[in-house]
Formats: sequence, C-alpha cells, structure tokens
Amino acid sequence: MNQDLKTKILSKVKDDLLDIETALHENLAPCLDIVSDIAGHLLFSGGKRLRPLLMVLSARMCGCNNKNEIDFSIIFEYLHAATLLHDDVVDEAEMRRGKKAAHAKWSAPKVVLTGDFLLARSLTIASMTRIPQIIKIIAKITEEMSQGEIDQLARKNDIALTEEEYMDVIRRKTAVLIQGACRSGAVFAHGRGKNNVLKDSEEKKREKALSDYGYNLGIAFQMADDLLDYTADAITMGKNPGADLREGKLTLPLIAALARADRKDRLWMEKIIKASLFNENDFKNLTDMLYKYSGIEYTESKANDHAIKAKSCLDIFEASESKDVMMMLADYAVARKV
Amino acid sequence: MNQDLKTKILSKVKDDLLDIETALHENLAPCLDIVSDIAGHLLFSGGKRLRPLLMVLSARMCGCNNKNEIDFSIIFEYLHAATLLHDDVVDEAEMRRGKKAAHAKWSAPKVVLTGDFLLARSLTIASMTRIPQIIKIIAKITEEMSQGEIDQLARKNDIALTEEEYMDVIRRKTAVLIQGACRSGAVFAHGRGKNNVLKDSEEKKREKALSDYGYNLGIAFQMADDLLDYTADAITMGKNPGADLREGKLTLPLIAALARADRKDRLWMEKIIKASLFNENDFKNLTDMLYKYSGIEYTESKANDHAIKAKSCLDIFEASESKDVMMMLADYAVARKV
Repeated sequence: MNQDLKTKILSKVKDDLLDIETALHENLAPCLDIVSDIAGHLLFSGGKRLRPLLMVLSARMCGCNNKNEIDFSIIFEYLHAATLLHDDVVDEAEMRRGKKAAHAKWSAPKVVLTGDFLLARSLTIASMTRIPQIIKIIAKITEEMSQGEIDQLARKNDIALTEEEYMDVIRRKTAVLIQGACRSGAVFAHGRGKNNVLKDSEEKKREKALSDYGYNLGIAFQMADDLLDYTADAITMGKNPGADLREGKLTLPLIAALARADRKDRLWMEKIIKASLFNENDFKNLTDMLYKYSGIEYTESKANDHAIKAKSCLDIFEASESKDVMMMLADYAVARKV
Repeated sequence: MNQDLKTKILSKVKDDLLDIETALHENLAPCLDIVSDIAGHLLFSGGKRLRPLLMVLSARMCGCNNKNEIDFSIIFEYLHAATLLHDDVVDEAEMRRGKKAAHAKWSAPKVVLTGDFLLARSLTIASMTRIPQIIKIIAKITEEMSQGEIDQLARKNDIALTEEEYMDVIRRKTAVLIQGACRSGAVFAHGRGKNNVLKDSEEKKREKALSDYGYNLGIAFQMADDLLDYTADAITMGKNPGADLREGKLTLPLIAALARADRKDRLWMEKIIKASLFNENDFKNLTDMLYKYSGIEYTESKANDHAIKAKSCLDIFEASESKDVMMMLADYAVARKV
C-alpha cells in the first residue's frame, strides 16, 4: 500500500523534482572539482529532495508560482547535505544511503570543509532573495541543528535520557530544518509571489500553519526513521539496522521500552546500551523486548499523532494539487518502509 | 620599536577592544555550556580582535558611531574562530595561541560542531542588520574560505606550488575575511550610520578603498605570519616554529628560495618537504637556506609592498583617529614579532 502512495506522490511531483535536480547540478557545477565530487557523492546518491520539495509546495500554497522558488529551494538540500556530511564524520558512520559515507572515501577534514562550503553556498543563495527574514530563519536552523548535534553527542549512551529530552533532540536534529523549509516557502511567496494581495494577518496565519505542518511532519518523519532502525533490514534501508544503538543514540522505541520493562529486562537492556557492542543475537533479543514492552507500538502511535496533526494544520488552505501532495507526504512519512 | 607601535595602537583602541570583549561575552553566555566552553577556550585565549576592530574602524571612517557597530563586529571574530576550530581539526594542530588546540582537549566532532555553531551565530547577527548586502559579503567570505582550505589541503606537500597559487591560497585563507570586515564596516555605516548624507558614488569609492585596504593588509599580515613560522621562537609565537612545513604547507619564503636554489640545495629542500619529518638541525639548515637564497628577504619585501599599498588606499579619507590607527595597523602587520 505504501508503495502505491509513493508512486502516487512521485507522479504528482516529478516535474518539480526534475527541476530541483537540474538546479542542484547547475549550481554545483562551477565549484572546485573536489568540492563537486564530495558534495555530489552525497547529493546525487538518491536523496529524496523532501526538503526543497516542501519549500516549493509551501510557496505554491501561498500563491507563488514563478519558478524562482525552485532555484531557491535547493538551499534546503544543501543544508541537509552539509549536516549529513558533518554528522557522518561525527558519528564515524560507515554507510549512508547504501553507499560508503563520504569520509570513508575522502579524508574527514575534506568532508568537514565541504560541509562548510555547502553551508556557505546555501547562505549565498539565501542572500540573493534579499529577504532578511529568510536569512534569519536559515541562521536559526543552522544554530539549532549544531547545538542539537552537540547535545546529542554529550548524551551518548546516556540511559537516563527522557522522552522529553528525546523530543528536543529530534526537534533540533530533523524537525527544525523541515519546519524552516515550509516556513521559508511561505515567507518567500509573501515577499516575492505574484499574488501578493493578502493582508498581513492572513499571511502570518498561513506562515504559522505551514511552519506547524513542517514541525509535525519532521517529528513524525524522524520517529519513523528511529523505528526503522529496529524494524527494517539492511538492504532496503541502505544502512545497517541497529546503527543508532551502536552510535550510542537512544531513541523513542528504546526509551519507551526501558520505562516499562521489569527490573531484570531493564538491567539487561542497559548493559547492552552501555556496551555499544552487541552481536546479531543480542540485537534480535533487544528488538523483541521493544515489542514486548510496547516501545515499537508506542512510537508508532506517537508518530501517527504527529502525522495527523501535520495534516490538520493544512485545514485553513483550500483544496489544491500542492495540498494533496502535502497531505500524502504526511501519510507517507509514517507508512514508508525505507 | 614595534613594541612601542603596539603600545600606541592599544592605547588608542582600548575602549573599543573592551566593548568588543563585552559584546562577545554577552552574546556567548546564553549558549549550551559545552558550546560556551569550547568556543570560549579559543575566543578568550588572547586573540587580537583584529577583525572586529577593523570593522568598527571602517564603519567610523564612513561616519558611523552609534555603538551598534560594536555588537555587529563580533561576527568577524566568530567567523575567524569557526575557521580556526575547523582548521585545527583539519591540520591536527597541537597548539594554538600558546594553549592546547581545542580538539586536543575535546573530541574532534564536538569541535567541528562548535565551529558550525559559531558560523551560524555570526549569520544570525548578520541577519539582524537587515542589510542583504552584508549577508552576501559574509556568505561569500565563508564560501571562499572553505574552498581555500580544501584547495590548500589538496596541495599538501606539493613542491610545484607557484607564487601565484600561494597568493590565491592566502587571499582566501586570510585576506578575504579581513577585506570583508573592512568592507562590511563601510556597508554597515552607509546603511545604518547617522551621517548618511553622502552620494552613492562617494559611498562606493569609500567602500572600495576600505575593501582594498583590507585585502592588502590581510596579505601583508599572512606573509608576516608565514615569515614568523621560520624566524620566531616557540615561546613568543605560542606555537612551534616549522609548523607550516610539518603540516605540508609551502609558504612564500620557501617557494621563493626553491625558485632560486641551485640543484643540489633544491633537491635537499624538496626531500625535507616531502618527508614532512625533520629534526631541529634539519629545520635550522632549511632556515639558513631561506636566508641564503633570499626567500626571507623576498617575502619581507612583498609584505612591505602590501602594507604600503594598504596605507595608500586610505588617501581618500581625511585625517582622523580611526585613520591613524588603521595606518599604524598596516605598519604593525609587518613589524610584529609575534
């Protein structure tokens, strides 16, 4: 079923995705060869372009449709890629999207610097909009994301991580960027769109609705991702399951199960977490406990709540192609198996 | 003599330096503890605050004096610090400003992420000016600096590096930021200053003059730095001499000497460069060759040329306290022994 949903979404956005792809290639082409190589390795390895697409759709929802939004939207793929590059170095991840992580192919310093370059390039594109509010949003995204990563690093293997703290981690790590992409789409449309005849308060309402949609979609998306790290298999996911645990990252399925486990099981789980080293059998037993203590079920239900909330944020908008896609994306965020 | 010059400069700018120091502390205080710690380790370890100071002086030269320029100027210390943090990880440097480099005290990932945070924070401050041109300048600086670092990394231990290529490396690595600080001062003053009564063409002339001053000062400054790596001693410099060579960085004193050396000496020098490993005696012999083949002298003369050029860029400005300091800074850039 979710395969059908994916096909349906893709058929509706294929032109936009092609335009985004072209914009990315054109923007990256004049860079130093090595920068293009490292950035391209990640950028052109099957990313979903979810973030630029959301920015484009959000802009359309606010009446903008002059194709400028495509050129501008790649900011959000660059920001995403910059974060992934730095994260891979930080986490010493070996695989990303089914390929070797960039730093396993190039030296970590080169990867760090390419991340910096992509960050800077996204800023350059943002400055071309000449809309100070957009710059502010992007600056804030970057600040929050780096603080979130540092925080996550400081809490590595910390069995005391609460659900509330987890929510703050995934907000900064994932939701902030998706939220920023949606919000920027609205701001861009209101500052630049052709149909700029709405009142200020109406504009603010739309901006807030899209921002809230993005936040909830981002949370749902990350929770689904954290579930997949326990439930998916290596081939469909493009990376090894259990990666989060190996990197010392406690996610909701585990946090929820820990809170419900009896003393004996909890102690065993804590031992596995602290060790960060486990064999396939240990991992299977741990996953069984996540089911036994409803860690999986609880996370699925929370992810669904956020997907539903995301959709309800769009209530204020009239029916449109863009709205259809955004509704389907919220469903897909929690239904996907990869 | 250059000690006198330093004392004279410091006496003239001590109030501004204090204000910059306060602004840095206030801006950094609300951050996560670990971010403040890592960033503060570098930020408050005796940096010269040259870049924010130049921005403030440039703004004053263009008629701005409302203290806002102080809050804004710390952008350039943040950008500088972010670069140093990433560079230290990239170069695996052990010492910085006489202290352990940040990544020797904290893990490299945390240092990388703190660099990202400072980059983002400088952007947030820039966005508060609401002057799109400033954002553009800062984005361009970051882009150029990261590309420059990547390029330098790719040319490690490359004995074929030409003087022209070296000029491009130091332009991106050092001059671009100092130039950007000076130019932003002018843009900030023209956009925000109280005495904003000049004509556009006059404003452009001033902006260009300060931008050129900054470029030439930056080049002179970096050449002097590259000289010190061969001529200074460890205690006054706060890091070990020969560090550039150990990191595989060919600088002008060496490039110029290589171009003039006879075959036998050149082959010996190339051997030392390629090895990146040398004892104190080797380093002494190499330094002797830089003198013998006028590598030191040539670099000193080039640095002086740029310092003189920097000063001549200020010809269009009437006499003022700020101009006095900027003239002295150009002299100090090449006279300093640390």
